[in-house]
Amino acid sequence: MSACSRIVLAGRPAGAPTLDNFHVETGPIPVPASGQLLVRTLYLSLDPYVRGRMSIAPSYAQPIAIGDPIEGEVVAEVVQSRSSEYLEGDLVRSKVGWCTHATIRPEHARRVQVGSVPITAHLGVLGMPGFTAYVGMKVIGQPKPGETVAVSAAAGPVGSLVGQLAKLAGARVVGIAGSAAKCHFLVSALGFDAALDRHTEDFSRALQDLCPEGVDIYFENAGGAIWPAVLPLLNRYARVPVCGLVALYNSAQQMGRDSLSETMLAVLRRSLLIRGFINSEFASEHYSQFLREIGPLVANGRIRYREHIVEGLESAPSAFIGMLEGRNFGKLLVKVANA
Amino acid sequence: MSACSRIVLAGRPAGAPTLDNFHVETGPIPVPASGQLLVRTLYLSLDPYVRGRMSIAPSYAQPIAIGDPIEGEVVAEVVQSRSSEYLEGDLVRSKVGWCTHATIRPEHARRVQVGSVPITAHLGVLGMPGFTAYVGMKVIGQPKPGETVAVSAAAGPVGSLVGQLAKLAGARVVGIAGSAAKCHFLVSALGFDAALDRHTEDFSRALQDLCPEGVDIYFENAGGAIWPAVLPLLNRYARVPVCGLVALYNSAQQMGRDSLSETMLAVLRRSLLIRGFINSEFASEHYSQFLREIGPLVANGRIRYREHIVEGLESAPSAFIGMLEGRNFGKLLVKVANA
Repeated sequence: MSACSRIVLAGRPAGAPTLDNFHVETGPIPVPASGQLLVRTLYLSLDPYVRGRMSIAPSYAQPIAIGDPIEGEVVAEVVQSRSSEYLEGDLVRSKVGWCTHATIRPEHARRVQVGSVPITAHLGVLGMPGFTAYVGMKVIGQPKPGETVAVSAAAGPVGSLVGQLAKLAGARVVGIAGSAAKCHFLVSALGFDAALDRHTEDFSRALQDLCPEGVDIYFENAGGAIWPAVLPLLNRYARVPVCGLVALYNSAQQMGRDSLSETMLAVLRRSLLIRGFINSEFASEHYSQFLREIGPLVANGRIRYREHIVEGLESAPSAFIGMLEGRNFGKLLVKVANA
Repeated sequence: MSACSRIVLAGRPAGAPTLDNFHVETGPIPVPASGQLLVRTLYLSLDPYVRGRMSIAPSYAQPIAIGDPIEGEVVAEVVQSRSSEYLEGDLVRSKVGWCTHATIRPEHARRVQVGSVPITAHLGVLGMPGFTAYVGMKVIGQPKPGETVAVSAAAGPVGSLVGQLAKLAGARVVGIAGSAAKCHFLVSALGFDAALDRHTEDFSRALQDLCPEGVDIYFENAGGAIWPAVLPLLNRYARVPVCGLVALYNSAQQMGRDSLSETMLAVLRRSLLIRGFINSEFASEHYSQFLREIGPLVANGRIRYREHIVEGLESAPSAFIGMLEGRNFGKLLVKVANA
C-alpha cells in the first residue's frame, strides 16, 4: 500500500453513531520533518471513551473536530526515523488516531518491547485499559481479602483485569457481562467466583443472591440500569471507582429509574466513596509500577486476557458501533497491517 | 425539680415529624449503680441526623425504639458519682438522650473542661458538629489556597466551621443558607467571601455568578435542589464531602429534577470524588488533633460560632421540628437546667 488512509469525523452522532459519521480519506504517505518519525499502524485500539470525544460535551478532553481523524491509540512500526531516539523497525505505542500512517514526534510515542508478550497486549491488558483497571483498584478500590468486588462490563479489557486483580488481592469477584458466553468465560477462564448476565430477569434479585455479604467495591464500568441493583448491596465504606458509562454515552438511556436521592442517601448513610477517574491522572505516579507488576503476570499466564480482532482499517467504524452495543467479546482491536 | 423528665418516641413520623411523635414521661430520678454516674442535663443538643433515627430505614445506626428516649447529646453535671473517675460537680458530654437526668457509665462520658470556652461550645463548634466539619474538610475536602469552596446549610454549626476552615486554608468560600439574615451573618460575622439565599430566584445562575472559577469543594450539608445547581460548576478533581441531607430526611423532597445520569457522567468526566461520612468513623484518628487545633482558635475568637438556645426540655420537640424546616439560626440547643 503506497497511500495513507485515515478515518475522520464526518458528522457528530445524535445518539448512537452511524456509519455516516465516519469518512475514509486517502492521500499520500506523509513525510516526517526533522526530529520526527514516520510510523505504520499495525493494530488500532477501539475504545468506548472515544464516543465522548465525538460529541461536544463537557468532558476531560476536547472533542474531535469535524474532519479530524478519530482518536485512537495504535501499535505501529517506525518506517522512517529522523530522530536519534528510534531506529527503523522499532515498535511504538502512540495516539495517532485511526490511520494507516502518521508522522509523530518521539515524545508522543512509547517504546513497545518485543518479546515476552504479544504486541497487541500493549493496547489492552498492558495498555490504557489495563492501566485503568490497575489504578482504579490500586488507588480507589483497594480490595482487601474476603471482600466482595462486583464489576460491570466484566468481559471487556478493563473489567477482566479488575476481576483478576481483585482475586489476586484475595477478594471474591462477581462479574456482570452481556451474554451467557461472556459469563462462562469469566468464571472458567478468568477465575471469577460468579458471573451474571445483565439481561437476566429479575437482575437485582439475582445479583443479591450472588453477593450474600453485600458489595465492598463496585467497579462502575458500564453505566445504565446496573446501578439501582448494586446500590442497595453496597456495604458501609464501599468504594465505587467510576471509569466508564458506555450505556450513557449515546445519551438516550438513563441510569434506571430516578434514584439520585436514594444514591445520595446511601452515600451518606453507608459512608460510600464514589470517584470518577481517567487513567492518565495517575500515569506519572503509577504507570511504571503497573508495568513492573502486571507485565510478568501477563507473560507467565497468571493474568489472562481475550482479544477481539477485526481486519482492515475500513472495518473500524462498524466494529466501534458494535462495541458500543456490547457486540465485541474481549479487547477490540483492528489489525491494520501485517507486522 | 425532684423528678426526672424524658422525651420518648411516641410514634414514627410519616414525612415531617409532628408533636404527636413525641411524648414526655416523668418519673423518679434514677439511682446510679456501682461504677455509674448520675448526671443532670444542662444543655441538650438538637441535631438533624436524629430525624433519621426516628424512622426505620437502612442507616449507619439502629432506629430509636418506640418508647425509648429520643437520641441526643448533652452537657451534664455529675450530681452523684459511684466511679473513681469523676467527682460530683464535674461536667461531662454524653449521649444520654432527651432527658433531665440519666445514669451512665464513665466510658460513655467525655470530660468537659471548664474555662477557656463556654460549655455550650462542646455541643457545637468543639463538639460533634464541629468535628464533622473538621474531618470533612481535613480528610475529604482538603482545601487548597485559591480554590473555591461552596457549602450548604452554611449558617448551621457544621457549615459555619466548614467555611471558616476553608478561609483559614486560603480558599474562597461561598455559603448557601436559608435567609437573607443568615447570608448577612456569613459574610459580615464569619468572613465568607459571598453568601446566597437558597430561595433566590434563578438560584443556579446566581450561584454560577458567585463562583466564576467553578467549585473545587462542595460540602453537601443540606440535600435537595442545591445539587443540580452545583453539579455543573464542579471543577475537575472537585471533592464532595456528604455529611447531611436534611432536605431528604422527611423523604418527600427529591434532589431537584432527575439527574442521576448527569451526576454520574459528571463524576466520570471531571474525576469527581463524592464521599459520604459520619464523624465517628474518624474519631479515633483525628478527634484529639481537632481539639488541639480548633480549641485555641475558638478560645481566642479566630473561629466564631452562633447559638440558638431555647429554654426547657419540653421545648425540644417543637424546636427540633423547626430545625428540620431551617427555622433555627445557629447551633440549636435546649437549656434544660441552670449550671
